[in-house]
Amino acid sequence: MGQTETFAAEMTAALQAAQGPSAAAQAEASARNDVLTKPPGALGRLEELAIWYASWRGNACPEIKAPQVIIFAGNHGVVAQGISAFPPEVTVQMVANFEGEGAAINQLAKLHGAEMAVVSLELDRPTADFTQGPAMDAADLNAALKAGWEAVNPESDLLVVGEMGIGNTTAAAAIALALFGGEAVDWVGRGTGLDDAGVARKAEVIAKALQVNAPQGPMEVLRCVGGREIAAMAGAMARARVKGIPVILDGFICCSAAAVLDRLVEGALDHCVAGHQSAEAAHGRVLTALGKEPLLSLGLRLGEGSGAALAIGVLKGAIACHSGMASFAEAGVSDG
Amino acid sequence: MGQTETFAAEMTAALQAAQGPSAAAQAEASARNDVLTKPPGALGRLEELAIWYASWRGNACPEIKAPQVIIFAGNHGVVAQGISAFPPEVTVQMVANFEGEGAAINQLAKLHGAEMAVVSLELDRPTADFTQGPAMDAADLNAALKAGWEAVNPESDLLVVGEMGIGNTTAAAAIALALFGGEAVDWVGRGTGLDDAGVARKAEVIAKALQVNAPQGPMEVLRCVGGREIAAMAGAMARARVKGIPVILDGFICCSAAAVLDRLVEGALDHCVAGHQSAEAAHGRVLTALGKEPLLSLGLRLGEGSGAALAIGVLKGAIACHSGMASFAEAGVSDG
Repeated sequence: MGQTETFAAEMTAALQAAQGPSAAAQAEASARNDVLTKPPGALGRLEELAIWYASWRGNACPEIKAPQVIIFAGNHGVVAQGISAFPPEVTVQMVANFEGEGAAINQLAKLHGAEMAVVSLELDRPTADFTQGPAMDAADLNAALKAGWEAVNPESDLLVVGEMGIGNTTAAAAIALALFGGEAVDWVGRGTGLDDAGVARKAEVIAKALQVNAPQGPMEVLRCVGGREIAAMAGAMARARVKGIPVILDGFICCSAAAVLDRLVEGALDHCVAGHQSAEAAHGRVLTALGKEPLLSLGLRLGEGSGAALAIGVLKGAIACHSGMASFAEAGVSDG
Repeated sequence: MGQTETFAAEMTAALQAAQGPSAAAQAEASARNDVLTKPPGALGRLEELAIWYASWRGNACPEIKAPQVIIFAGNHGVVAQGISAFPPEVTVQMVANFEGEGAAINQLAKLHGAEMAVVSLELDRPTADFTQGPAMDAADLNAALKAGWEAVNPESDLLVVGEMGIGNTTAAAAIALALFGGEAVDWVGRGTGLDDAGVARKAEVIAKALQVNAPQGPMEVLRCVGGREIAAMAGAMARARVKGIPVILDGFICCSAAAVLDRLVEGALDHCVAGHQSAEAAHGRVLTALGKEPLLSLGLRLGEGSGAALAIGVLKGAIACHSGMASFAEAGVSDG
């Protein structure tokens, strides 16, 4: 995949052609699960998680050895509409904090042995204010998708994509409204700390954005009311799908990027599990629309991939049990 | 604490005299939380978890370096009433599996760097069938409480207690019925795999147990309708309370042991957080009665401390963020 000018089309074609999980590994993992030293089903969702992961890795007895966390950062012209509690300078400041290993995501990535990459996307060139016209032109969109695609380490065995971008819950809400319909107010929340008036303003902003841009199709939605870091997350998750690397979805913004892929190509998110449900109210609605049940629900609303990174521990637990436990026969335990 | 004959009374006195968490560490941890590089409250429950843990460790910037998992195993005379899907020989077989590192809990303890101890409690001498009279005499109860107390490594900084004991969901249900009231059917579930008739039988068994024994007070409830591993769990959690070692509660059986302490001494469970809510329906009711909100809810119903051990990852994540993140001032990030 090379041509930046046609990257969106090439990525879509690659997603359409991507292979699914291994049916053989799935069957073998399922058979293994049935004979492990526990009552049937007693590990609950850990059992289905392990079988799902095994099927995507083509290995009935997998390990998680090389998780990758990628944080994409972008700036948003729509902040001119007063939809964020923090000033846009915070995006670049937080990128420095990621690089200095001072943010929450750094601690969680380190805890779970994940390689972490930070990708800044033209922070000095915010997207256009999408209440006035498209956030990005085709070149910007393609470049951002490609940056995401290329940021994935193809040798990794698990991917978390996170983001930083003051204003990006507004972009995510606009994407959700465009893709899923309903009322603007259904998709807006407090972001990093808006008051009631700010939330009402945000709903007006996204309603206006869709009126002004009237985007047709998921890729146009992403271009018109998305942002560079959201497009890059979509590009990274698409690459993971093509490479058979399972993804843990983070919060509302990550899931808005995922939703674009979901509406673009059927089954594009089969390699994804929902890491958590955030406190941003609309996140639960997006997860429902995507048919994903969250692993955690602890009221996080930070972004940065933090909820997904926390859920790496749950997935590692599932895999550790699945691949490390003895069978009834091996352990000499009566199986009831 | 030495005299086995009077251990229950000594333990109760020690619990009554035990110090609470450090108010100074709590205040300092809370102040630290306020200046970390995230919007206020954006880490949700991780923030309160970290402050809670800091207060019990007397350290505003703590680490989790030495978690301990202890599995207590016991056998139950009440299995004569046909209340388990597995034969009682499985208890000793599973102890061998723990010792051979083949069980789910071994994998989870290893994943989270926890020291693991397995304590068998007279497996060849089951408790008496409590539909006929008390499960234990005073000597048995005291010995089991003391075994739990002494199994705790006082140098550990986090404790998970788990159990193995065919028939012990019936004992836990009888304890819950005795302590919390309601109908017998409210407290019985499928255990490791009972059918509807088995569940109905279990309800009859626990109703009869309370009729026959009519225990007065939490310690008598534990003696009459509990079991050795349940008493040992209570002893271990009491020791942790006295030593200021935070505890992650596991499922229904663990929480029945915790409930005895809760009814024995006010605040006896302030050092405990609920690791998960299991698929055993009555577990949610016990958690509500104890005022504990679970960290995870993934449909586990294995016992062995597995749900609590999985939740070590969540608590470690909370502490990693709290103690590792930069402040706004340190990172040069605008605080909104």
